[in-house]
Amino acid sequence: MGSASDKKVMEGASEILRDFGVEHEVKILSAHRTPGTLKDWVEGLRDRGFAAVIAAAGGAAHLAGVVAAFTTLPVIGVPIKSRSLEGLDSLLSMVQMPSGIPVACVAIDGSKNAALLAVEMMAVYDNDLKIKLDNFRSVQSEMVLANNEQL
Amino acid sequence: MGSASDKKVMEGASEILRDFGVEHEVKILSAHRTPGTLKDWVEGLRDRGFAAVIAAAGGAAHLAGVVAAFTTLPVIGVPIKSRSLEGLDSLLSMVQMPSGIPVACVAIDGSKNAALLAVEMMAVYDNDLKIKLDNFRSVQSEMVLANNEQL
Amino acid sequence: MGSASDKKVMEGASEILRDFGVEHEVKILSAHRTPGTLKDWVEGLRDRGFAAVIAAAGGAAHLAGVVAAFTTLPVIGVPIKSRSLEGLDSLLSMVQMPSGIPVACVAIDGSKNAALLAVEMMAVYDNDLKIKLDNFRSVQSEMVLANNEQL
Amino acid sequence: MGSASDKKVMEGASEILRDFGVEHEVKILSAHRTPGTLKDWVEGLRDRGFAAVIAAAGGAAHLAGVVAAFTTLPVIGVPIKSRSLEGLDSLLSMVQMPSGIPVACVAIDGSKNAALLAVEMMAVYDNDLKIKLDNFRSVQSEMVLANNEQL
Amino acid sequence: MGSASDKKVMEGASEILRDFGVEHEVKILSAHRTPGTLKDWVEGLRDRGFAAVIAAAGGAAHLAGVVAAFTTLPVIGVPIKSRSLEGLDSLLSMVQMPSGIPVACVAIDGSKNAALLAVEMMAVYDNDLKIKLDNFRSVQSEMVLANNEQL
Amino acid sequence: MGSASDKKVMEGASEILRDFGVEHEVKILSAHRTPGTLKDWVEGLRDRGFAAVIAAAGGAAHLAGVVAAFTTLPVIGVPIKSRSLEGLDSLLSMVQMPSGIPVACVAIDGSKNAALLAVEMMAVYDNDLKIKLDNFRSVQSEMVLANNEQL
Amino acid sequence: MGSASDKKVMEGASEILRDFGVEHEVKILSAHRTPGTLKDWVEGLRDRGFAAVIAAAGGAAHLAGVVAAFTTLPVIGVPIKSRSLEGLDSLLSMVQMPSGIPVACVAIDGSKNAALLAVEMMAVYDNDLKIKLDNFRSVQSEMVLANNEQL
Amino acid sequence: MGSASDKKVMEGASEILRDFGVEHEVKILSAHRTPGTLKDWVEGLRDRGFAAVIAAAGGAAHLAGVVAAFTTLPVIGVPIKSRSLEGLDSLLSMVQMPSGIPVACVAIDGSKNAALLAVEMMAVYDNDLKIKLDNFRSVQSEMVLANNEQL
Repeated sequence: MGSASDKKVMEGASEILRDFGVEHEVKILSAHRTPGTLKDWVEGLRDRGFAAVIAAAGGAAHLAGVVAAFTTLPVIGVPIKSRSLEGLDSLLSMVQMPSGIPVACVAIDGSKNAALLAVEMMAVYDNDLKIKLDNFRSVQSEMVLANNEQL
Repeated sequence: MGSASDKKVMEGASEILRDFGVEHEVKILSAHRTPGTLKDWVEGLRDRGFAAVIAAAGGAAHLAGVVAAFTTLPVIGVPIKSRSLEGLDSLLSMVQMPSGIPVACVAIDGSKNAALLAVEMMAVYDNDLKIKLDNFRSVQSEMVLANNEQL
Repeated sequence: MGSASDKKVMEGASEILRDFGVEHEVKILSAHRTPGTLKDWVEGLRDRGFAAVIAAAGGAAHLAGVVAAFTTLPVIGVPIKSRSLEGLDSLLSMVQMPSGIPVACVAIDGSKNAALLAVEMMAVYDNDLKIKLDNFRSVQSEMVLANNEQL
Repeated sequence: MGSASDKKVMEGASEILRDFGVEHEVKILSAHRTPGTLKDWVEGLRDRGFAAVIAAAGGAAHLAGVVAAFTTLPVIGVPIKSRSLEGLDSLLSMVQMPSGIPVACVAIDGSKNAALLAVEMMAVYDNDLKIKLDNFRSVQSEMVLANNEQL
Repeated sequence: MGSASDKKVMEGASEILRDFGVEHEVKILSAHRTPGTLKDWVEGLRDRGFAAVIAAAGGAAHLAGVVAAFTTLPVIGVPIKSRSLEGLDSLLSMVQMPSGIPVACVAIDGSKNAALLAVEMMAVYDNDLKIKLDNFRSVQSEMVLANNEQL
Repeated sequence: MGSASDKKVMEGASEILRDFGVEHEVKILSAHRTPGTLKDWVEGLRDRGFAAVIAAAGGAAHLAGVVAAFTTLPVIGVPIKSRSLEGLDSLLSMVQMPSGIPVACVAIDGSKNAALLAVEMMAVYDNDLKIKLDNFRSVQSEMVLANNEQL
Repeated sequence: MGSASDKKVMEGASEILRDFGVEHEVKILSAHRTPGTLKDWVEGLRDRGFAAVIAAAGGAAHLAGVVAAFTTLPVIGVPIKSRSLEGLDSLLSMVQMPSGIPVACVAIDGSKNAALLAVEMMAVYDNDLKIKLDNFRSVQSEMVLANNEQL
Repeated sequence: MGSASDKKVMEGASEILRDFGVEHEVKILSAHRTPGTLKDWVEGLRDRGFAAVIAAAGGAAHLAGVVAAFTTLPVIGVPIKSRSLEGLDSLLSMVQMPSGIPVACVAIDGSKNAALLAVEMMAVYDNDLKIKLDNFRSVQSEMVLANNEQL
């Protein structure tokens, strides 16, 4: 994430990854304020065995695009709701990437889906995760249906 | 893709996949007009060995979300530029997914990046693809730099 | 409605239907999280004598469109105000349906009008409802005019 | 429709209604330029046996709302793409109706869906129309699927 | 104004008119809920000596346009900030009038400027009001400049 | 108008004023490029007998606001459709004036309505103009209704 | 700044300038309410040794453009978040300047960056400021990185 | 500029700089496709005597922000009109920079003003440029005024 203020939203991603038993690393690194450290960290990710990067930022949210410039690992972007334009700036800055450097953008503040997306990518090659995803979906369905009993 | 009119834009994705030697299947199936066929096709994808789905649609672009409801394969959404709102409707319909069912959204008409994203996902587990991606990036850099000679 | 969080807004629709003495059924079913149950429920509605469906959802609000794909009953969509884009995403996701599968969209959080619209559809064939609508309109006019006395 | 310039778009609605064998009347009447004639025409519709009104207008598109003020027949609004704001003004002017006077809004330039919606409303009480709608949907599905043969 | 909820904002207009000693009448009348009373009231305004109408409404804010359809008095529209789209719907519904029926639109919630505009129109033909406007401007300038002393 | 490129749109205003026999003066003066000449011209208008100013500009359309700062004559703003944002920038720059300095904004490219608004302001004090306005409205109604004969 | 209500936001700019030891003057002057005083003040700035002007305003934010019309000093604009459109109006009014009169626009409420931009302009010709900027950047990087220790 | 497709728009900046006799260098370098070369080039600019950088890009326009991360020279951003959202994405990606790393944003496609802004920055310290700017403004005023002769 690009700023300490994104922590609260991004806690949702960590939660999902912990629930699925997926090892991960959380960093606050900015495309604009710590470009060198960011570059070094991103370039080392594949060798350290990472399968994806989740990048969260708000406003002129360049983080996901800049991360994507430094790796061919899949980069998932989470636009953070901004102070003035309801997150429209964050969303457009993340999703409208030029051809050649892809970013996988999720909803504004959609940190849980970013983590689920990463899990889905790994589950293609990991049957245990695949089964956990199926269970997650089943539980989720049941929770929606359970709401009907209280109507 | 949701409609035959999306073919022209989505040709960009096929091109990338062909260039990277990635087998793929192209279908026109609509979340609204052929929901049954769509469901059957999507539900069979994992068993047929697919690693990702790319869904392209415009306007009230529900295709990617509906596909994601039927599979835990990673689903990549391509919002197609619409006739009246410059693609803003397509983008918001695709990217603003509720928590629990993720869609990886790329730019409006960003079919090439959708394909590259799929390649990146597979390249985590396929070193040949990884090398091809590195080459793709190198060639791309050189092409940008080559433009400077003509200035 | 697509989520339990829509209940508060949709209470306005139930109120109108109760006031007009129109039998109805309230369900929480999601286009993405419970697609199978949703399909079964929607496909059974006409045989159970329903005359219309009201579908409420927020964000990438696919519910109304997905419901409309499974029935030729008139489907009325209520875009729910979303957390980040003031309901613009909900509105565009609902109203910009492709040709062939119509959705009758009302205002953001416009649950009362959704119910009134359903009543109006039935009142074409039910004179008692027609008279109740006329009364509703008269009372409504009088209430607006009564405000002038307090100015 | 509110202006002669809307004719081209609204031809799509007439086509659908003709295909379904639904009698209808086409009028150019403006909420602003011919308010009196509009009022008289709208107020006479129920007695003349009409089951719904389709109102199309662009820009500050008040037509559907003004029609809805004069009748309790269901009013379907078609926002026409405007010259300067891509139809966003037409859409918001039509769909954001205050509580108490409903308008059923379809997509920008969505004239065909407006007609289909009217047919759906009538088909609840007319089994022949219901069967025609089912056929329409089947043909539509087949046309989408047929596109796959040419890929 | 179209609804009692607009009263708080419109108090600003009454204040200005009172300060300038301009006689005025405040009414809550809705284009949709009380169209008949509205028409009668508007059509009588010129004969009763009114020089302008100020119409305030939110959402699908048709009031100013409908008033303008019934009179050739200058109509000033005040778009009221709406519950969901920050007043963008109110603004576009008011300002994007079709050619032939003008509305003079001021800022969202700009009730004071609506009143000042009415005063300016009358001041062209009333030197006392002209002098009061000049004084108003002078006092206003001084108040801005006075703020500098507290910096 | 702020630029020679606005001439084509503003021709519509001149046409209306000529039709109504209203004397007027057309100037190209820019709030940014010729601020001094603009100020002098605006400040002289009342003494030269003008009853209103119409100001047209696009993009960061400051012209109407700057004109309004220099006169207490009613100022009518015409936002001109811009090259990149469909006139949304022009509209917001014109209409969202701060309290104290009013601008009467019409639709994007709404030059005819700007002129009609000026005529309406004068017609309050000029019965001949009032009658001409009534005729204009009648002819306009008839033209709308005449379109119905060709359907 | 154009209004006393902008003071709270603009305090951020003063803070930066004080930290960098840059002399500055703070004024509340309005393009619309005090145009004459504004013009005089702006025209005197170069001779009094100023190197840049920072202009902050909200809504129809003409201040920066009007300042730029009166000087060839670099003008930095700060769009202030507005009451109704989330600052979109302020931003577009400031940034979409016509060719010939430039304004350097920063983010909505971006007062600190406005000051930093002014410092950067001066640091090109002032090595002490250049060194302070480098230090500022270093401290800023360290603060971002320090956040990682608390994760 | 970030892409060869921006050349046509950016020619306007070169023209201004040539007219003012300001030495400059034109490069096509992408924040995403050539991040390393970009960094090296930007970091060398101050030592090579450059006084400002103009960065032009469209869509998720990260170029200006990424350049600003590598230098404390003033960075001027030109958002290029994009294919689908009328340049709104380019504008928001450029202007909504986080606190600490400023970008001076001009209008969409505003290349001439970017160059003029750079000239204004230098003219604070270069009287010849100051005089040329005054001449430029005078000629510009005269050209606007000259348009009045052809009305």
